[in-house]
Amino acid sequence: MIVVLRPHSPPDQIQSVIAEVERLGYRAHSITGEVQTVIAAIGDETTHHTLDALSALPQVERVLRVQKRHKLVSRLPGAATTVIDAGGGVRIGGPRVVMMAGPCSVESEEQILSTARAVKAAGATVLRGGAFKPRTSPYEFQGLGAEGLRLLDLARRETGLRIVTEVLSEGDVDSVAAVADILQIGARNAQNFRLLVAAAKTGRPILLKRGMSMKMDEWFLAAEYILSVGNPNVMLCERGIRTFETATRNTLDLAAVALAKRETHLPIIVDPSQAAGRADLVPALCAGAVALGADGLIVEVHPHPAEAMSDGQQQVDFALFEELMRGIAPFAAAAKREW
Amino acid sequence: MIVVLRPHSPPDQIQSVIAEVERLGYRAHSITGEVQTVIAAIGDETTHHTLDALSALPQVERVLRVQKRHKLVSRLPGAATTVIDAGGGVRIGGPRVVMMAGPCSVESEEQILSTARAVKAAGATVLRGGAFKPRTSPYEFQGLGAEGLRLLDLARRETGLRIVTEVLSEGDVDSVAAVADILQIGARNAQNFRLLVAAAKTGRPILLKRGMSMKMDEWFLAAEYILSVGNPNVMLCERGIRTFETATRNTLDLAAVALAKRETHLPIIVDPSQAAGRADLVPALCAGAVALGADGLIVEVHPHPAEAMSDGQQQVDFALFEELMRGIAPFAAAAKREW
Amino acid sequence: MIVVLRPHSPPDQIQSVIAEVERLGYRAHSITGEVQTVIAAIGDETTHHTLDALSALPQVERVLRVQKRHKLVSRLPGAATTVIDAGGGVRIGGPRVVMMAGPCSVESEEQILSTARAVKAAGATVLRGGAFKPRTSPYEFQGLGAEGLRLLDLARRETGLRIVTEVLSEGDVDSVAAVADILQIGARNAQNFRLLVAAAKTGRPILLKRGMSMKMDEWFLAAEYILSVGNPNVMLCERGIRTFETATRNTLDLAAVALAKRETHLPIIVDPSQAAGRADLVPALCAGAVALGADGLIVEVHPHPAEAMSDGQQQVDFALFEELMRGIAPFAAAAKREW
Amino acid sequence: MIVVLRPHSPPDQIQSVIAEVERLGYRAHSITGEVQTVIAAIGDETTHHTLDALSALPQVERVLRVQKRHKLVSRLPGAATTVIDAGGGVRIGGPRVVMMAGPCSVESEEQILSTARAVKAAGATVLRGGAFKPRTSPYEFQGLGAEGLRLLDLARRETGLRIVTEVLSEGDVDSVAAVADILQIGARNAQNFRLLVAAAKTGRPILLKRGMSMKMDEWFLAAEYILSVGNPNVMLCERGIRTFETATRNTLDLAAVALAKRETHLPIIVDPSQAAGRADLVPALCAGAVALGADGLIVEVHPHPAEAMSDGQQQVDFALFEELMRGIAPFAAAAKREW
Repeated sequence: MIVVLRPHSPPDQIQSVIAEVERLGYRAHSITGEVQTVIAAIGDETTHHTLDALSALPQVERVLRVQKRHKLVSRLPGAATTVIDAGGGVRIGGPRVVMMAGPCSVESEEQILSTARAVKAAGATVLRGGAFKPRTSPYEFQGLGAEGLRLLDLARRETGLRIVTEVLSEGDVDSVAAVADILQIGARNAQNFRLLVAAAKTGRPILLKRGMSMKMDEWFLAAEYILSVGNPNVMLCERGIRTFETATRNTLDLAAVALAKRETHLPIIVDPSQAAGRADLVPALCAGAVALGADGLIVEVHPHPAEAMSDGQQQVDFALFEELMRGIAPFAAAAKREW
Repeated sequence: MIVVLRPHSPPDQIQSVIAEVERLGYRAHSITGEVQTVIAAIGDETTHHTLDALSALPQVERVLRVQKRHKLVSRLPGAATTVIDAGGGVRIGGPRVVMMAGPCSVESEEQILSTARAVKAAGATVLRGGAFKPRTSPYEFQGLGAEGLRLLDLARRETGLRIVTEVLSEGDVDSVAAVADILQIGARNAQNFRLLVAAAKTGRPILLKRGMSMKMDEWFLAAEYILSVGNPNVMLCERGIRTFETATRNTLDLAAVALAKRETHLPIIVDPSQAAGRADLVPALCAGAVALGADGLIVEVHPHPAEAMSDGQQQVDFALFEELMRGIAPFAAAAKREW
Repeated sequence: MIVVLRPHSPPDQIQSVIAEVERLGYRAHSITGEVQTVIAAIGDETTHHTLDALSALPQVERVLRVQKRHKLVSRLPGAATTVIDAGGGVRIGGPRVVMMAGPCSVESEEQILSTARAVKAAGATVLRGGAFKPRTSPYEFQGLGAEGLRLLDLARRETGLRIVTEVLSEGDVDSVAAVADILQIGARNAQNFRLLVAAAKTGRPILLKRGMSMKMDEWFLAAEYILSVGNPNVMLCERGIRTFETATRNTLDLAAVALAKRETHLPIIVDPSQAAGRADLVPALCAGAVALGADGLIVEVHPHPAEAMSDGQQQVDFALFEELMRGIAPFAAAAKREW
Repeated sequence: MIVVLRPHSPPDQIQSVIAEVERLGYRAHSITGEVQTVIAAIGDETTHHTLDALSALPQVERVLRVQKRHKLVSRLPGAATTVIDAGGGVRIGGPRVVMMAGPCSVESEEQILSTARAVKAAGATVLRGGAFKPRTSPYEFQGLGAEGLRLLDLARRETGLRIVTEVLSEGDVDSVAAVADILQIGARNAQNFRLLVAAAKTGRPILLKRGMSMKMDEWFLAAEYILSVGNPNVMLCERGIRTFETATRNTLDLAAVALAKRETHLPIIVDPSQAAGRADLVPALCAGAVALGADGLIVEVHPHPAEAMSDGQQQVDFALFEELMRGIAPFAAAAKREW
């Protein structure tokens, strides 16, 4: 780490910082600049105590980190993207771009089965659908719960699609993992570290959504929680961040897709539905995501969006979904990916 | 709700929106403007299904909500702020501005006891201290856990201070509630609705931090989750929001204090330590918070900030805390509050 | 407009709002809901006085706009994108995606000529290069000024490339327009309305960058300033918005490209260099922009980025630019565009 | 500056960075860490070329600045706040907190004169009022222009209040400076550096509003542009920043007041009207601003806010202004300031 001292700090104050740096196990290397002294603290930052607290000293202006904080998720030079096997022949992170599609919420047997058939026919290989829904207001539809899980299971048996569904609570991890092929951690729980660890321990692949105001390195560190308890099967899911712009529900950060592919070896999924908050932009955002290197897409599809019990405005209907699937094909080809 | 149709929508498309509005139980009232038709949907929005999903129809441009979504937390005209009894004579929301102070993390018996004595001597009535710490990286100090709770209990017995400490997991709610007089829900868990409900059910007062990117109405709705299961003792805690500014760790939104006092009947606490991320700004932010009507402050205090195991840069030492306490007094008097 | 009154407003207070609405020339239509009264003000919002100020009345809770504020930039149903002729056969908004490329700053004759030749050889048709540079600090390189314009002119004569360059000041509009085929308004001046109008009056095509914290409708209204003084040749340029994320310099809002294409008839250009602030992400962002429907790209290219006098970190060198141009071709084809 | 190299960079790549650092006039000091090499570039960063462009090299991970970029605005240890004489006995930055008040826009002789009398009677010493208005839409009221200046002059002659008014264009600087005692640079022009320099050269005191998405150091550097051409009379004005929160028009960053007082020697003014965008929060924000150390306040006041030609919702009427002035007194006393 680098400790920047205030201009004109007296020698004894510099010495006391050096002493503290060494007390914490680093070798201290002092550099006298024209205006300010800088102390380089040499030692592995991932195993030593952070020096951030030195900012509490009046003579310390700032403490700068040199190393990145994530380790297990880092892509080593030349390393390939991790391929995650979700069962049923679905592999995420390989040559094929994977489509996960389905309703925001599981609402009824008729709704989930008809949707499962439609998205499968159009080319999706994973079915999404919320059984437990995190809703901003306690007065909004909270999902069908266990019944929703049963219906997802039914849809899988009939169609062979793999299932991705959200888990909201440590207490539900086992029952959700009994049905889900992929456990989704939602944006609101992206730093619910206890839930991350509990989900990781099931051994199921995890789709980790980026929190609404998560910096990329915080997102990588949330994934690191999962890898650090022995589950290597993490997908990062970019779903838009919260910004001042209100024309879209969130601001889809597609540069994050390209950057996450460089920094980590994890597959990247993009959720254009949650990002845009409006169905009409979803096809274009899918094309953009694939162009930028996404390994998969997760799209909300509903038989009758205007009657949906949650987030109807951002769900596409079957006809638009079918068109969207065809429309992505040339972009997947341009990106040298299978589709 | 108000449904705005696109300019020049044909009559049959207008009719189909009206039909859908009425199907969902509202009375529809159509207003033909110069350019656009607007449909007013008359009915209590808090008990009817939302019309947001109508945006999925091509002829619908936007759906606007009329009523506010929160109910139980709303301040009725002329109503007083709810006073929360935290035991031991500590009442929050009444005439006295309450100081909660203590270390970021409980680190040792010596550390927590010396801090408890120091903050009590300076005038604090509640001791804060993290036993379970939500840390961005899995490699950072995660708190002492159960041992931390034991030490907090010890500090209470010795000093009589009330205890506020964070609960991270539904699984810990009972053990934390056995020690804590006030349960803290942290910013990262502010929309972990299952945890909110589990904490609420203990009957303990809840200090609910605003999430890093939570709009005010989302914060109020998170509180609504707690009130709606029968626990009226919620304090809202403003601790800064995430913005583009990096000179401070977060941007303390003090207008939110004034606004939350108008909109809700809940006491408002301000956390300047977490907001600023640097100790030197804490005293000034405390003065500002009191001037704006805060009912309490929660401040991080450590015997030796530069040696703290977490967030040392934002913790004040005993001398600065004592000075801060004295410095607030005239502002509390100006705000016509006891101190 | 829609005026939402507070719950339980007495009849005389409702009447006084109606009177004020009618005084301002609207027809007032009152709707009594279950909880709140709403007044619909019927009249063309683009020619009547806004009712926003009614929020100053204690009985008014909110005022909601129905119509969009922009007019001339709006895309009518079925209308094509405006095609802008920049001279020399360069047409923006037509079938061909246009590449504008060149250094951040014009630094020397050697630098600009070599870059012009290289980008032309790779397929660019417009040369970018800053003669007047808006720099955050007064101590940073401010551009070569008039000499920079002379060098751009020289590069055009030699290569036939069209020139786009920024104008910073009303006082420079004429001299910049004497050289530039396209006048660029930078992000920092996107709401410098006097400069917009002065630039518009030259009749030159205008490339209008989105301001760092401009909402989309504010960006469209800035363009409206230009169209409203009779210059229809405006390109909107998305260059990233300011958010909490620091891994990239700005957050490129690619959904804005798709949305701006729907809402307006103006061509959309994307600037990935300024958005990312790092050269390595530029090729991927170009592909994404084209997939999302961009009509053009503006990319920073420098013979030796590490020695650039401004923003070297985000400039690509000739070899990477050449590779980038080839890499975009399949995405342009997938988007059914010429390249 | 500090140049952080990528892990495992080979010696020749390290050498080439050292060579480039030395070519630019710094002494290079290489520090070999456990994982990464860091090169400290020793030399005054404010007079040497920046090394940011070295990030363009593949072996360079990041470049970190050590020194702050601002110089003339910096507060030296122990230095007092600059006191600005606005004439007529009005001194800003001294013991007295200064109130600047008046309408958003100058609308008529009757309006500005009645407001001037009312705010003077309540204790304001500076009259604000926009003659040239920067409006988001070209269809909104753009101010009375030269006639507005004449009316401000009239108000000054009658009441003796000093005048602060905005200048939008280099072309207007002389005519505005002929009337204004303080030239206001608005948020939208805060990085219109040509305007800053032109305004500075009049020698008038400048009130520099913070741009909507300006980081604090960018704000200080904008002030530095003014000081660097020889005008030391700059006031910084915090007026809220743009964030995701929409309950207020902007998010007032009161920590910025405390921080700007530490970092610079310039007086700090707070604009609660523009920040809140609603009149009811203005009194509380004034109290908070004074508690945090503001040297002045600028508040929008209108005889009949609901009839204002611009931003009526955020203007207070005479009665509320008078109450607000009385309400601030105890907070000014608590802050040991005159009022």
